[in-house]
Amino acid sequence: MCRWFAYIGAPRIIEDLVYEGDHSLSAQAMHSTKAKLGVQGDGGGLGWYSKSSEPGLYRNPGPAWSDPNLRELSRHLESHVFFAHVRASTGAPNIFVNCHPFRNGEWLFMHNGQIGDFPILRRDLEKQLSDECYQALQGHTDSELLFHLMITNGMKKDPKAALRKTVKQVEEARLKKGIQDAFRATFALTNGKSLWALRWSSDDMAPSLFKQGDPSSMLVVSEPLDEDISKWQEIAPNSLLTFDRKDCGTVEEELEIFL
Amino acid sequence: MCRWFAYIGAPRIIEDLVYEGDHSLSAQAMHSTKAKLGVQGDGGGLGWYSKSSEPGLYRNPGPAWSDPNLRELSRHLESHVFFAHVRASTGAPNIFVNCHPFRNGEWLFMHNGQIGDFPILRRDLEKQLSDECYQALQGHTDSELLFHLMITNGMKKDPKAALRKTVKQVEEARLKKGIQDAFRATFALTNGKSLWALRWSSDDMAPSLFKQGDPSSMLVVSEPLDEDISKWQEIAPNSLLTFDRKDCGTVEEELEIFL
Amino acid sequence: MCRWFAYIGAPRIIEDLVYEGDHSLSAQAMHSTKAKLGVQGDGGGLGWYSKSSEPGLYRNPGPAWSDPNLRELSRHLESHVFFAHVRASTGAPNIFVNCHPFRNGEWLFMHNGQIGDFPILRRDLEKQLSDECYQALQGHTDSELLFHLMITNGMKKDPKAALRKTVKQVEEARLKKGIQDAFRATFALTNGKSLWALRWSSDDMAPSLFKQGDPSSMLVVSEPLDEDISKWQEIAPNSLLTFDRKDCGTVEEELEIFL
Amino acid sequence: MCRWFAYIGAPRIIEDLVYEGDHSLSAQAMHSTKAKLGVQGDGGGLGWYSKSSEPGLYRNPGPAWSDPNLRELSRHLESHVFFAHVRASTGAPNIFVNCHPFRNGEWLFMHNGQIGDFPILRRDLEKQLSDECYQALQGHTDSELLFHLMITNGMKKDPKAALRKTVKQVEEARLKKGIQDAFRATFALTNGKSLWALRWSSDDMAPSLFKQGDPSSMLVVSEPLDEDISKWQEIAPNSLLTFDRKDCGTVEEELEIFL
Repeated sequence: MCRWFAYIGAPRIIEDLVYEGDHSLSAQAMHSTKAKLGVQGDGGGLGWYSKSSEPGLYRNPGPAWSDPNLRELSRHLESHVFFAHVRASTGAPNIFVNCHPFRNGEWLFMHNGQIGDFPILRRDLEKQLSDECYQALQGHTDSELLFHLMITNGMKKDPKAALRKTVKQVEEARLKKGIQDAFRATFALTNGKSLWALRWSSDDMAPSLFKQGDPSSMLVVSEPLDEDISKWQEIAPNSLLTFDRKDCGTVEEELEIFL
Repeated sequence: MCRWFAYIGAPRIIEDLVYEGDHSLSAQAMHSTKAKLGVQGDGGGLGWYSKSSEPGLYRNPGPAWSDPNLRELSRHLESHVFFAHVRASTGAPNIFVNCHPFRNGEWLFMHNGQIGDFPILRRDLEKQLSDECYQALQGHTDSELLFHLMITNGMKKDPKAALRKTVKQVEEARLKKGIQDAFRATFALTNGKSLWALRWSSDDMAPSLFKQGDPSSMLVVSEPLDEDISKWQEIAPNSLLTFDRKDCGTVEEELEIFL
Repeated sequence: MCRWFAYIGAPRIIEDLVYEGDHSLSAQAMHSTKAKLGVQGDGGGLGWYSKSSEPGLYRNPGPAWSDPNLRELSRHLESHVFFAHVRASTGAPNIFVNCHPFRNGEWLFMHNGQIGDFPILRRDLEKQLSDECYQALQGHTDSELLFHLMITNGMKKDPKAALRKTVKQVEEARLKKGIQDAFRATFALTNGKSLWALRWSSDDMAPSLFKQGDPSSMLVVSEPLDEDISKWQEIAPNSLLTFDRKDCGTVEEELEIFL
Repeated sequence: MCRWFAYIGAPRIIEDLVYEGDHSLSAQAMHSTKAKLGVQGDGGGLGWYSKSSEPGLYRNPGPAWSDPNLRELSRHLESHVFFAHVRASTGAPNIFVNCHPFRNGEWLFMHNGQIGDFPILRRDLEKQLSDECYQALQGHTDSELLFHLMITNGMKKDPKAALRKTVKQVEEARLKKGIQDAFRATFALTNGKSLWALRWSSDDMAPSLFKQGDPSSMLVVSEPLDEDISKWQEIAPNSLLTFDRKDCGTVEEELEIFL
């Protein structure tokens, strides 16, 4: 179980979201309120958009709370779309290629959750990757595989359809192998202009997901970044949120049932 | 606040003490029961004695729970004296030179606790180091400095006297600068034949210290390594324990009031 | 192109082989004489046998010359079979799972060389892995894959046959895809009792391989570990060497044409 | 001996200077033409100015050529003043606090070279630091100490005077201890508006220093970043260069004899 936040809106610096207060992402890395393990000390990462169409990526396998470079970047980078992630490994080793976000072309993806009994399912799911996506894998996490299944499934043309197809693919693989352990996940996906956030579980225990914001800026988070719970709105399980940042800078939002 | 254990006795492998159960040192690194911060994710280390008079040292600034090399070494090294340590930084950066144990010649030292307002006191204390010890410093922690003050104070000839002189030196420096924050510490010190363990605080909140064992093997620990509390004996504050491993292999123990 | 040495014989400490002189393995890491890139700064590793049937493993993605733990271990570990390796990446990222040696049960493997156009061949080759071996992969190097192909091909029962089958498998995959770039390699393989060393290339440019020793101890190396070239015997290309350490401690040696 | 470049001028992306061609900074890290050791694999770093008055800092103790984050940052950061550095340790351990650039408030400093017999001189030189600078030290390199001596010597008010005073301080300390080994250095110093570059040696073997540019942008480098030597102008030993970036964006340059 990991913790993440995704930001879309007016260009901003994200240092306070990562480092200020008892519920910042870095504080959650050490003491999360809602995550099962409580400690997310297995890596941290940032993705951001600058002038280039391809986003920038920073990933480090050490704990976010003691990473001087993560602190520097969160203070000095300014962007209209930010992804930030702290990782609690569910088995895969502590190496930067297993850290989030993942990038492909102009796209970023990050993830919290787990595919139950993933080692049993991995080979079947990797068979369904395009050759290009199979070659692009750098690690062996379910997160990186989910992203590449989505790419194989046409994400760059129709992200919502690709999300649905990918989740179904995983559910079918679980069914085929008779896996009991659930597939639980929150996803954040962006191309720098739109942002999609999914809360999903194959059972009734979907990982938490919240949002806060207005038409000028929107945050989606694994758990609230401060104590003022009333300011955060919980996303219902089985929901897909879409945020579009219009040329005027306004963020439009759409909520739909996922499956 | 860090967690550590020290072993002296019949040669053994230490893997179980580091990795087995909910209270092993690695488990304490993620969820300590008695340490203030709860998470000791800022490095791990081992010291051990083989045929060479100089002990071996392994230190890594990453969390113990995800360090594959620490796991390998705790499984494959066999020794009659082991030090193992997981670190929670009290400010100094996450680099291997700040990780415990510290070594000088045939001596090993490790530490839990903190000198209150250490940054204010550091220069005064470093002035009291011999030139040789000043040159030998690799980092800037209070732990490494305490060890080098002890060496300067004649530790290799009379370790108990050096321990007392060093603690007094720190207390005098605190007094001189009017520092209110306490000096709280547990120390483990060894030359591969004898082992000294100190529980000290300048106030009445000394960090916890326990022991368990018999004449063939003895463990001293920051906190119990399993749930069976009855098997662990708490060391009183302001106590200095000495363990001598005789040529026959028997470990003799002596307890004295420290100051 | 990497550099490695393998030792079998009377139990010994390997520090001098890794650190002494201008041609030690650590010196080769910075300035190799025979390797194409010249610098092998992409990781270092050790494998060794202690009392346990499973060998110990130490791997670190940083340069060998600045790794304090590698130095400690090479000074303090004593073993009758040692593998030591410094890595120059041919593309795969600098993470410990891509470092040599690789281990499976009681077996160790390390490798120098490259499968030409490996990214194009990887998927076809991975298809030929058993499910168990597919699951066991931690990285994406040709080296780790070669080891798992050998395991799939029955290495634990008949290592020589598995070596031959695996090299043929790679050559067939190259042929099938019309790959021009050669498959060049030296392999070291051991189960702690016997050691196999292979020098192979699909063209006439096999990576260098040398040996030195006598019935009490044998070294196989990528390139000589000192300047006294006359003491090192070059292994002919397309040769497979087998070293058996008998119960009396004597190392018996056999040389055969590989394919 | 390290390699570095400093840029001042029109805002730019620095990726090509770090990664393109056989003489880029990353290529120099693996195969420097002019540096004694030839390999600068002991860390890499960037400093840059964004909107904040305090510059951003990225430092990593691994080799620049295999650091994915250094690559990302050099591609995505845009700035009018950049410092980039690759490190070859002259003895101090491979940890991020020993990597360049060093920062204090709005100032950045980086360095190539060595104070001969530095371990013997270190204590005397550290005695001359202000309490604030003594406390601020994070590592034990001559480079970090030189920067803090400069700060103690009034660098923030009069950088040229502080440079001179600091170099004299080191020369006096050498004289006092009878050190024969030379003090050889190139310095780069900036506050984000002006940039100072010094080439100095106490003997006639000053480390190389070159420049290239025009009033819109200026590069100062340890050695040329491409093969076209004619485009690079060597800086004479014992020279201090000052570059001022005026509000209009023009870079004015002044050369003077240093001592």
